[in-house]
Amino acid sequence: MVTVTIWNEFRHEREDEDAAAVYPDGIHATIADALTDHEVRTATLDEPEHGLTEEVLEETDVLLWWGHIAHDEVADEVVDRVQERVLEGMGLLVLHSGHFSKVFKRLMGTTCNLQWREDGATERLWVVDPGHPIADGVDESIELPQTEMYGEPFDVPEPDRLVFTSWFEGGEVFRSGCCYRRGNGRIFYFRPGHETYPIYENEEIRQVLRNAVDWASPTGGSPRTFGERE
Amino acid sequence: MVTVTIWNEFRHEREDEDAAAVYPDGIHATIADALTDHEVRTATLDEPEHGLTEEVLEETDVLLWWGHIAHDEVADEVVDRVQERVLEGMGLLVLHSGHFSKVFKRLMGTTCNLQWREDGATERLWVVDPGHPIADGVDESIELPQTEMYGEPFDVPEPDRLVFTSWFEGGEVFRSGCCYRRGNGRIFYFRPGHETYPIYENEEIRQVLRNAVDWASPTGGSPRTFGERE
Amino acid sequence: MVTVTIWNEFRHEREDEDAAAVYPDGIHATIADALTDHEVRTATLDEPEHGLTEEVLEETDVLLWWGHIAHDEVADEVVDRVQERVLEGMGLLVLHSGHFSKVFKRLMGTTCNLQWREDGATERLWVVDPGHPIADGVDESIELPQTEMYGEPFDVPEPDRLVFTSWFEGGEVFRSGCCYRRGNGRIFYFRPGHETYPIYENEEIRQVLRNAVDWASPTGGSPRTFGERE
Amino acid sequence: MVTVTIWNEFRHEREDEDAAAVYPDGIHATIADALTDHEVRTATLDEPEHGLTEEVLEETDVLLWWGHIAHDEVADEVVDRVQERVLEGMGLLVLHSGHFSKVFKRLMGTTCNLQWREDGATERLWVVDPGHPIADGVDESIELPQTEMYGEPFDVPEPDRLVFTSWFEGGEVFRSGCCYRRGNGRIFYFRPGHETYPIYENEEIRQVLRNAVDWASPTGGSPRTFGERE
Repeated sequence: MVTVTIWNEFRHEREDEDAAAVYPDGIHATIADALTDHEVRTATLDEPEHGLTEEVLEETDVLLWWGHIAHDEVADEVVDRVQERVLEGMGLLVLHSGHFSKVFKRLMGTTCNLQWREDGATERLWVVDPGHPIADGVDESIELPQTEMYGEPFDVPEPDRLVFTSWFEGGEVFRSGCCYRRGNGRIFYFRPGHETYPIYENEEIRQVLRNAVDWASPTGGSPRTFGERE
Repeated sequence: MVTVTIWNEFRHEREDEDAAAVYPDGIHATIADALTDHEVRTATLDEPEHGLTEEVLEETDVLLWWGHIAHDEVADEVVDRVQERVLEGMGLLVLHSGHFSKVFKRLMGTTCNLQWREDGATERLWVVDPGHPIADGVDESIELPQTEMYGEPFDVPEPDRLVFTSWFEGGEVFRSGCCYRRGNGRIFYFRPGHETYPIYENEEIRQVLRNAVDWASPTGGSPRTFGERE
Repeated sequence: MVTVTIWNEFRHEREDEDAAAVYPDGIHATIADALTDHEVRTATLDEPEHGLTEEVLEETDVLLWWGHIAHDEVADEVVDRVQERVLEGMGLLVLHSGHFSKVFKRLMGTTCNLQWREDGATERLWVVDPGHPIADGVDESIELPQTEMYGEPFDVPEPDRLVFTSWFEGGEVFRSGCCYRRGNGRIFYFRPGHETYPIYENEEIRQVLRNAVDWASPTGGSPRTFGERE
Repeated sequence: MVTVTIWNEFRHEREDEDAAAVYPDGIHATIADALTDHEVRTATLDEPEHGLTEEVLEETDVLLWWGHIAHDEVADEVVDRVQERVLEGMGLLVLHSGHFSKVFKRLMGTTCNLQWREDGATERLWVVDPGHPIADGVDESIELPQTEMYGEPFDVPEPDRLVFTSWFEGGEVFRSGCCYRRGNGRIFYFRPGHETYPIYENEEIRQVLRNAVDWASPTGGSPRTFGERE
């Protein structure tokens, strides 16, 4: 069974009434409810070592990352540790505003900047790679009636595979589902999510999260041997 | 100076009043007007060998391709010849409904199928790769007030670089500017264009065509030697 | 269980003593022995429809392709059928001299040409992507004491992922394990193999074949809907 | 004219007799001799701000990077500055042991680790992408009689384009010429180079450096606008 750790900054939900109304137990708890076929634990910013000790990461197959207003409070030492584990093979799902997390910027090497607007208008995520397992069971598009807009340009390396592209009512587009491999690790950036829109209650979004966890789970491989040779 | 051959099916403009009104001398003539810094010739389906003799192709640096209702009338022998020249280094720009041309399908290896709707609504082409020379001088997006919609999925190999993604008023998205390399040749698929909307009169679209011709022009390289070695 | 069809030209083994000595029941039979966890059937050139009827392809999850001296005898109609099935999601493993098969050239859009030498010297296949499931259980390299050399340039599109690169005793290198996706189908080109060297008896090569079959098996996805939209 | 800054750690040549014998004025001076059609300046580790002030970087089109034994002495602030300029469009050529520089690791997001052996044996760099402008004027391969070996796996993201693959006499292979884009910047990793083998005296290697500088030079593009939209 795949072991998943859901990391959440968990500040909005404790400080903001609107967020608490949507995610009373935290975004991580709602996401955990979606991953019923996986062994799930959660970790949050204000725990010691942000809940991401070496032991926790060692036992984690796939790490999910949600952060927004406190990216800078994440200790570089923990970022190092997460990066190292991804390169060794741990999967990583970066959600929504996690695009600006230290972890994602570290692994991408770019600013990960974008355009945005808080307008609560409609988003439609189109599957542009219908053969991808992350799109399994999804219809040709997923419609979210109210979202924050993210628009291009999105300053990330060209994805290995682009699975979703979003259409926004206000006139923008965005590469919303981007697959990368770094070292042995599989990384999936998935745009949907917000602290006050109930995106992670959406059944299609939950299906994508489940698919992405399975896709990002470590697979076997060959030795990763470096250094001097005889 | 880059030598360009603009190939046009040239049927709509001779058979259909609406098309003739927009492109009285043919789509190829209008495109030729946009390529003022290039040495331009044109070729059409009903010429002998479709105007694409070995000599013409030999002298062509970049070939543009517009076709729609008569893809099947293009002789396989000419398709073979174009493919061979692209692999040797000739650039190829495939425009709009050229996605279904024998030449493009041959080079892609896929159906090149897509979704579409003739609704004459607005399209906005977003630059998703602002560092790409094909986007030089273009603003963050190009707006076309009336177009035919093309929607995902678009059955092509994952592009080497995606330069434009289109937003359509009716709710769809499309990868509208796709770069490929096959053999030594550079290929750019560019969605805009239609027989009755004056897309190729649009100055920003013309800028993209000029940029794409320059990008697709052959560059030097190393020997392409195959066969038995000693 | 994954259903595999091994297609073999099956001419060398019936016409040439040396090939018959190594592969008395045909290359397909030896490869079939390696795929013990899969449901395997075989098909050969001289069967009606080359053994690849619509029914057979419909039931095939992954098709393996070995051909060498009779590529031109493969009917275009069967090539069309194989291409269509790959685009729908059937996996395809193209082996050794299959690089020049109509099927592979059709899906790649290039000449698939290369350099070669029949010298029976050593090849070492290095894993360049240790995190790839096709390399699972393989050591850092696989050594084959006697092989035919294939050298760069290899006229194929840049692979989506490069898993193996070969070193040859005579001084050449080759991209020996290349992954592609076309439509919904996964394609793996794997260089090793020959009609008179017992490459497919090698246990590590057999491990790669098993891995590649699993990797290329169809996964679920989203609808592949094309055509006019309302 | 393209403005190039050659950055060299410049320690070996001042501390080690063998290095001083080969590169009496420093590796940077020898490389500068090769770039005769470019406007060249140099910068070294022990200058203030390592010679890479904001002004210098602002005026630099393409930066070359050679470092080996003092990667850790490069200030993070300068690394930030170089990264920022690359994302804005400055080209970057990372040479040989620069694979372990902070700058390269920052932009790649991986360890950039590899295998190596100081054996002074032959390397042959094969052109695997003969249509690439970086290979312009190069023969099918470049032979270096004495080099340090670098072997796979090379822990970098899959290159956008792979131009060279090295064959080593001792039995290894290596992806020796790797192209990346990050933000608007073009990055080329080029393996050859060493402090005591006169690699940068080799005329073919110098040709590649010139080609790579031209390839990496900034091109025009479209606005790179981020942040909140109305």
